[in-house]
Amino acid sequence: MPHFITPSLRTRRTPFSRWVEQKGVKAYTVYNHMLLPTLFESLEEDCAHLKRAVQVWDVSAQRQVELKGCHAERLLQMTTPRNLARMRDDQCCYVPMVSPDGYMLNDPVVIRLAPDRFRVSLADSDMLFYFKGLVAGFGLDVAVFEPDVSPLAIQGPLANDLAAKLWGDKVRDLRFFRHMKVDVGGKGMLLARSGWSKQGGFELYLDGAEYAEDLWKRLFEAGEGMDLRAGCPNGIERIESGLLSFGNDMTLSDTPQQAGLGRYVQDVPGCLANDALKAMARPMRIIRAVEIAAHDIPGCVSPWPLWMQGKRVGEIRSAAYSPEFEIGVAIAMIDAPAWSPGTLLQVEGPGDEWLEATVRPGFWR
Amino acid sequence: MPHFITPSLRTRRTPFSRWVEQKGVKAYTVYNHMLLPTLFESLEEDCAHLKRAVQVWDVSAQRQVELKGCHAERLLQMTTPRNLARMRDDQCCYVPMVSPDGYMLNDPVVIRLAPDRFRVSLADSDMLFYFKGLVAGFGLDVAVFEPDVSPLAIQGPLANDLAAKLWGDKVRDLRFFRHMKVDVGGKGMLLARSGWSKQGGFELYLDGAEYAEDLWKRLFEAGEGMDLRAGCPNGIERIESGLLSFGNDMTLSDTPQQAGLGRYVQDVPGCLANDALKAMARPMRIIRAVEIAAHDIPGCVSPWPLWMQGKRVGEIRSAAYSPEFEIGVAIAMIDAPAWSPGTLLQVEGPGDEWLEATVRPGFWR
Repeated sequence: MPHFITPSLRTRRTPFSRWVEQKGVKAYTVYNHMLLPTLFESLEEDCAHLKRAVQVWDVSAQRQVELKGCHAERLLQMTTPRNLARMRDDQCCYVPMVSPDGYMLNDPVVIRLAPDRFRVSLADSDMLFYFKGLVAGFGLDVAVFEPDVSPLAIQGPLANDLAAKLWGDKVRDLRFFRHMKVDVGGKGMLLARSGWSKQGGFELYLDGAEYAEDLWKRLFEAGEGMDLRAGCPNGIERIESGLLSFGNDMTLSDTPQQAGLGRYVQDVPGCLANDALKAMARPMRIIRAVEIAAHDIPGCVSPWPLWMQGKRVGEIRSAAYSPEFEIGVAIAMIDAPAWSPGTLLQVEGPGDEWLEATVRPGFWR
Repeated sequence: MPHFITPSLRTRRTPFSRWVEQKGVKAYTVYNHMLLPTLFESLEEDCAHLKRAVQVWDVSAQRQVELKGCHAERLLQMTTPRNLARMRDDQCCYVPMVSPDGYMLNDPVVIRLAPDRFRVSLADSDMLFYFKGLVAGFGLDVAVFEPDVSPLAIQGPLANDLAAKLWGDKVRDLRFFRHMKVDVGGKGMLLARSGWSKQGGFELYLDGAEYAEDLWKRLFEAGEGMDLRAGCPNGIERIESGLLSFGNDMTLSDTPQQAGLGRYVQDVPGCLANDALKAMARPMRIIRAVEIAAHDIPGCVSPWPLWMQGKRVGEIRSAAYSPEFEIGVAIAMIDAPAWSPGTLLQVEGPGDEWLEATVRPGFWR
């Protein structure tokens, strides 16, 4: 039985909420104390459309935190084992952030605006609070605040065509996880080739809520004839693509290595978690793609225990039925003896019947 | 047009969600990454029932953070201008928490379990992250974590009778904001005379999710003949009672003095915000109860600007129609020239018509 969400000031509306509701959004979640659209037609139809056309997503809830001051890079590096000194000027860096004891706090994308100025595009946790605590404790010279910047994603195979109509053909050459400046209402704003799907596309970092209406209208005018729709991150496509969700697939109880993010653990000077991460370098459980032999897969609202020959060996954390692959697609955290591709597992799902699952060598896309 | 909430693991279910849904919860909000029930019958009927009988509220979303170690009190005192040394052993302390620059981060209730062990019952922000940052930066010896403790509130005029049936007449003598130990399934747990209404009642800190079913069933068995219902914090009653909501009535942009919490600013050694709070001792705006001359008041999902003789003088942040007082009740942040009781203001509400509002000397209860 579905439940309504009670509107309030605390669960903040975005600069685009009005337009998203005009386009018929049916459901929301709350993400960083802000509304994030989750459903328009149906999970399946939203997914199919995303794969064939182009969608505009209000992902303002990927809240931005800005670090500005001579210790900005030092502060940032304290929180992550990824080497930020190697970041290029036009690069978007996926940055697992960890506590000093080596557990995940967030997995944002970081952009450098200037040598002493960074933007962090956050998953769902108050990293602003962790930064503030570090600044106070280490006596750092850096301002930490949430700027009025709201990401809007353009996703789908026609994303290049749509973006080119607004900003010219130069956007076609933008490389993956690189950014450039484009004009929105006379103001230069960041456009990145990124987004939480593998259908291709961009994220535009709207710099000022007052530009939202103009941008939205220009996009939908330009999108005529392209079957452009308002959309949102899709629970099927993102599992197929192996895009992890902080709070779902990994939590404060998981290390980056367990989350399959070991390649970002680079033993860089300044990261507070170096010793802890070294000590936990060989995880005893790890994130895996899992295929479920079923056609009716409900959403995963509590972890589904995984069993192997009567022994508990992990849990499924995200799941959906994939119409494209005609199978249940899932993300699971699995213990060492059971994580090899091909391993057959039993799922204690939410229904009465047990399901069969198989560990996969990788995600579907 | 109401929207659904999309269930997910990230927006955590509570130990009581199953029972709350059996009792017909209609709407949720997300609070500390967890589901918080917001509606059963209707806002008005839920409110009327709360005032005449007794309700059990799943307020697990008031997440608990535990601080344990020799620097626990020092860490806690860093975050608040309220003098924690004065806290009695059986006391629940309402504790505004502020950043070093003097702005609100949360307004939890704190309980001391032992000289080196505290529990913080949080409003909606990740204080866990701020604590972790301070611990790392100052090199403190204290563990900071979220224990498996979930508050359940018993609220309404018959709360004493219901609690006495379970735990004996001694609970009737429990004073306001004091706590005692009671038995739940053979385990001693904290019962406090507290809760987010002014209808009287308790909060039971469920110590272990596995006890939830037993407690819930015992409460509803004991409540037969008392018109006991599952309920939730009520948006009308809490405004009438002047119970502030962090994220609605005050945010990271407000000082405790602006939030009307000046009496907790006690210049105590160890609080990181002392200098900042001293410099901002005389706020230029402050929280006020405001009466709106209207019978049809929608929820406040964006601040409603307040005007006085053509000049913007503040904003309404929470509002509802009160059937009991037959008037619109609201909480507003108002600038110095306009905050005197009796001041007549104009409200730029969400509809087409402007509304009349009057600043009140206090809340309604």
